[in-house]
Amino acid sequence: MTPTITAFAASPDRGRGMARDMPVRWAFEEVGQPYNVRLVSFAEMKEPAHLAHQPFGQIPSYEEGDLWLFESGAIVFHIADRHASLLPEEPKARARAITWMFAALSTIEPVITEWEVPEYFEQDKPWFRERQRLLDDRVRKRLRALSARLGDADWLDGAFSAGDLLMVQVLRRLHGSGLLEEFSNLAAYVARGEARPAYKRAFAAQLAVFTALNG
Amino acid sequence: MTPTITAFAASPDRGRGMARDMPVRWAFEEVGQPYNVRLVSFAEMKEPAHLAHQPFGQIPSYEEGDLWLFESGAIVFHIADRHASLLPEEPKARARAITWMFAALSTIEPVITEWEVPEYFEQDKPWFRERQRLLDDRVRKRLRALSARLGDADWLDGAFSAGDLLMVQVLRRLHGSGLLEEFSNLAAYVARGEARPAYKRAFAAQLAVFTALNG
Repeated sequence: MTPTITAFAASPDRGRGMARDMPVRWAFEEVGQPYNVRLVSFAEMKEPAHLAHQPFGQIPSYEEGDLWLFESGAIVFHIADRHASLLPEEPKARARAITWMFAALSTIEPVITEWEVPEYFEQDKPWFRERQRLLDDRVRKRLRALSARLGDADWLDGAFSAGDLLMVQVLRRLHGSGLLEEFSNLAAYVARGEARPAYKRAFAAQLAVFTALNG
Repeated sequence: MTPTITAFAASPDRGRGMARDMPVRWAFEEVGQPYNVRLVSFAEMKEPAHLAHQPFGQIPSYEEGDLWLFESGAIVFHIADRHASLLPEEPKARARAITWMFAALSTIEPVITEWEVPEYFEQDKPWFRERQRLLDDRVRKRLRALSARLGDADWLDGAFSAGDLLMVQVLRRLHGSGLLEEFSNLAAYVARGEARPAYKRAFAAQLAVFTALNG
């Protein structure tokens, strides 16, 4: 059965692949699982029909027969759990790869999404510049630790895994900030992720939604 | 083999069970798995011996023979994956319970930990009050959605799961704020979690570390 995910009909990122359907599309492409996409408007996301399956009124949700899931991290895990290649078979390596999934979403992503808030919502506040510096340093502290761990390896723990997929996707949010470039091995790590054929197919698919709307 | 986790030698929360060893201890207690605790000082957390197993210099880490893990969410998942009772056997129910684990850590926890930041670090800033109101509203928005989903159920999806364990632990951070009390079903949900014998044993164990240090 082909699963169906929801995605923004009009993504606020203008097709830059920052919306949360991107890691799910990427995971589908890595494992070779075809998928359908149902586009939803902002109004539809707040309606009971959507909230029944995505209680926070966000995207993506995931539908496979009578199974409904939400949370991009959980959906990526579900895809990785059902197919080979995104999580190692060997139990210890598998547990370590899952650790990196949680690290991406719990330790790295929150400082990055918070770092994005002032630019969108606090530009006109008197505290804007001072807070931006605090938030830059918070991101740097985490990147420094991640950079030290990655060292000169290609991926975080052996072969490319769902942990790398989520970590690269989270770090991509820093594109254009200069922060990622302060850690050359992390910039190269993100570039390696973006060079994967599965990433490119996923990126093209989400960009096509934006292009069709605005083309 | 009895696993060993690390915890703060001197927890900054003064034994209130907010440190990240708490959900891991709780999970061990729920499944009946004995565990050892190695206490680490703030200085030790930044040393290479600890960073080798916890790259961000935090607690907890998890050691089981030659398997080392970190990230409390990943460790709780590992415990739930290896034992019965914290994740349903039935695959669809299991995937839904895992979804709630990610929802607790990705959708609810970040707005709550951010909400805590000004109290600790921005009390002296001119923006303190105005930002606090913004952050209160951000937390409320998420609690409103969670409250609507929970309704009058005891737990988020059927029986108590690792998803509820992480969600209750995350919501506990709001104790004393008044925000949780605006949603009576969520306050009752947290109280149900805290009334579980496994929770009480875990809480007592972490409090004993603080009491021994200051007794």
